[in-house]
Amino acid sequence: MKQLNLEKQLMNNYDSKHDYDGISGKRLAYRLGEISNIGLTKEGGSNRPGFSHEEKQAKELVIGWMNEAGLDVRMDGAGNVFGRLEGKKDLPAIISGSHVDSVPNGGHFDGPLGVLTALEVVEAWNETGYRPEKPFEVVIFTDEEGARFNGGFGGSEAMIGIADMEKKLTLQDSAGLSFEEVLQDVGLTVGEYVASKRNLDEIEMFIEVHIEQGKRLEKEKLPCGIVTGIAGPCWLEFTFTGEAGHAGNTPMYDRKDALVAASEFIQAVSKLPKQISDSAVATIGKIQVEPNGVNVIPGSVTLYVDIRDIYKQTRDDLIKSVLHTGTSVAEKHGVTVESIEKMRVDPVPIEEAKQELLEKSCHAKGINAYKLPSGAGHDAMVVGEKLPIAMLFVQSKDGVSHSPSEWSELNDCMETVHVLKHFVESLQA
Amino acid sequence: MKQLNLEKQLMNNYDSKHDYDGISGKRLAYRLGEISNIGLTKEGGSNRPGFSHEEKQAKELVIGWMNEAGLDVRMDGAGNVFGRLEGKKDLPAIISGSHVDSVPNGGHFDGPLGVLTALEVVEAWNETGYRPEKPFEVVIFTDEEGARFNGGFGGSEAMIGIADMEKKLTLQDSAGLSFEEVLQDVGLTVGEYVASKRNLDEIEMFIEVHIEQGKRLEKEKLPCGIVTGIAGPCWLEFTFTGEAGHAGNTPMYDRKDALVAASEFIQAVSKLPKQISDSAVATIGKIQVEPNGVNVIPGSVTLYVDIRDIYKQTRDDLIKSVLHTGTSVAEKHGVTVESIEKMRVDPVPIEEAKQELLEKSCHAKGINAYKLPSGAGHDAMVVGEKLPIAMLFVQSKDGVSHSPSEWSELNDCMETVHVLKHFVESLQA
Repeated sequence: MKQLNLEKQLMNNYDSKHDYDGISGKRLAYRLGEISNIGLTKEGGSNRPGFSHEEKQAKELVIGWMNEAGLDVRMDGAGNVFGRLEGKKDLPAIISGSHVDSVPNGGHFDGPLGVLTALEVVEAWNETGYRPEKPFEVVIFTDEEGARFNGGFGGSEAMIGIADMEKKLTLQDSAGLSFEEVLQDVGLTVGEYVASKRNLDEIEMFIEVHIEQGKRLEKEKLPCGIVTGIAGPCWLEFTFTGEAGHAGNTPMYDRKDALVAASEFIQAVSKLPKQISDSAVATIGKIQVEPNGVNVIPGSVTLYVDIRDIYKQTRDDLIKSVLHTGTSVAEKHGVTVESIEKMRVDPVPIEEAKQELLEKSCHAKGINAYKLPSGAGHDAMVVGEKLPIAMLFVQSKDGVSHSPSEWSELNDCMETVHVLKHFVESLQA
Repeated sequence: MKQLNLEKQLMNNYDSKHDYDGISGKRLAYRLGEISNIGLTKEGGSNRPGFSHEEKQAKELVIGWMNEAGLDVRMDGAGNVFGRLEGKKDLPAIISGSHVDSVPNGGHFDGPLGVLTALEVVEAWNETGYRPEKPFEVVIFTDEEGARFNGGFGGSEAMIGIADMEKKLTLQDSAGLSFEEVLQDVGLTVGEYVASKRNLDEIEMFIEVHIEQGKRLEKEKLPCGIVTGIAGPCWLEFTFTGEAGHAGNTPMYDRKDALVAASEFIQAVSKLPKQISDSAVATIGKIQVEPNGVNVIPGSVTLYVDIRDIYKQTRDDLIKSVLHTGTSVAEKHGVTVESIEKMRVDPVPIEEAKQELLEKSCHAKGINAYKLPSGAGHDAMVVGEKLPIAMLFVQSKDGVSHSPSEWSELNDCMETVHVLKHFVESLQA
């Protein structure tokens, strides 16, 4: 895998019928390939953590292409890059893009694809001589993945002015470097970081293209889908405490088995989401049993429930149901339960009007308009706190992401560029 | 706890009304106290692993008391000690006892109490001038706990001739010493070990007094109980394999969550024993989830089921039901399941006739005859493979054992000695 040739791999299955209206599959494949060579790991993955020299190098590569495309390029104090094409009128801009940082040994599509599809729209306009009424900006947000400080969304938060600088200044990366030192290393400063908040009146909306990181589009055999909202995760920690005892000497009727109680809870929780909403999910992924001995009745079980939905109301209803289930199951089994809310991020719904516009763009390109929620967070989630947003997901092979085997077919990427271009043009009227 | 004075602690709550028919609470308390000082840990526990110098020293102490009581003492090649009182007739002997080895930092009752209650019967006979028709032997079995080689029952297996010498010769203790070297260290040899098999025609039956290591007698407020059988444990390992996935991007209807499947299995297994027998138990004490991440749908779950009953038929029926439940739950959830049998030891039931005799002895001593199974293994389980057995459990405080806080009240121990003496005498006719 050392000699990864992403461009060649992408072109293998490519059908050039998607090369029209000035959009080029070859160009997109070439550019994805060039970015993939920065921070390439021996497993063939990407290693470009936020605020690293690799992330910076990837930005500089894209800036070069932005310049060639005639964009007016600016980097703000958080390292966010904006390549601006002026519109015929002095109106708020449509902005589109994503990020070029990665998780350690991540993939080559999560992030770069969103940046390059936006840039491809500009390239197409250049080829055909189209000029939009409204300014259009291709954006690269810094440090979306948060691999360096276990945070993420650093760039988009700075742009909309919600970065928690007090907290950031206490952070240390795994090498012991402070946030301030890390910024300095890539030529940024804390002062400029704070000053990178934009006047949001200058922006009409943000649209992000991103890989799905799930299997729905693959199952539907669709190149892309319309995101209905970005689910806000809530993490609840539950500890069920019963009574440990010898597996041989404690009769069944006299047990307070914390795992038997917890297993009824797991069963019940798995059935709750569908009672509340089609897009709601609840997952128990992590569990610890004490003392965890083959012949010892479990004395306590700690587990974590990950609860998500794209609507705050239903997500919060689901949280309440899960908490209520914990209490009633514990009572039934004569054990005690304690719960702690470890995290609660509000979901970001996407306006119906924007989804309808994307539907029209899909239909215009002969694609079945399929809607799906986003379970994971994206820059659009952060931007959506202050500005209208829209999102297009591109089919992911096997739903795999954050891995060298992350993959999207070039045909699917190209169909998505056509939908994106149609959508942005439809906003000009 | 350094200056543990077990004798004094035992005497604190002692009611001397139990001192009659030649049995002495003070003597029993003194002897338990003397043994407790051998291998006393800083936490106040016992540390006398099998084949250690501490175990040997405890045996020598008891041998001294046996000699004083006029018993004919013999140690066999496995280190088992037999203190024999001849009967008026040349008949097979009644034997009674237990062990004096302990788990690391164990308690002071598990083992020694069984040896000393048997010796107390002889002391009582000496006081009152009673002579039994049949020979009576007080026995100390070597290495019941198996702390040295993770085995156990070494002495009782040798006596009845079922020791697996081929396996034993491959064993190493944690210090790297072989079984043979360990034997040599305490003056034993492999050849004599094998030769320690007794002619079982010389023995009528074995009765063992042991602490309950459970809470039933404490709940029933009874000094002792009649053991109905010794449960044979079976350990099954199950692995449920589903499909890992992102907790946010995988809809509920498209999941193969191994933990949701496993939790239905845990629920179902907890309800099976009572459908099969009153004494059956099934416990899932150990569970491992992969990858065990808060936001990752569990891809696989490995868990262990400990299944026990005192009847082979019902225990084996329960095993079948558990295996069947694993398959049907996996099928229902669209996951796969594999199971491995890690251990299966046959249960040892105790003859109804012996239990009835013990009932009569309880009633004769004004004690409600309460019957209960033994979930844990004992020397009586091994001896029971070849000879008739009986067992009396003594109330354990909080059901705790294998711990410095293991405790039985002297009043309860003494009531048990009276039942034991009555039982042995009732066998003389």
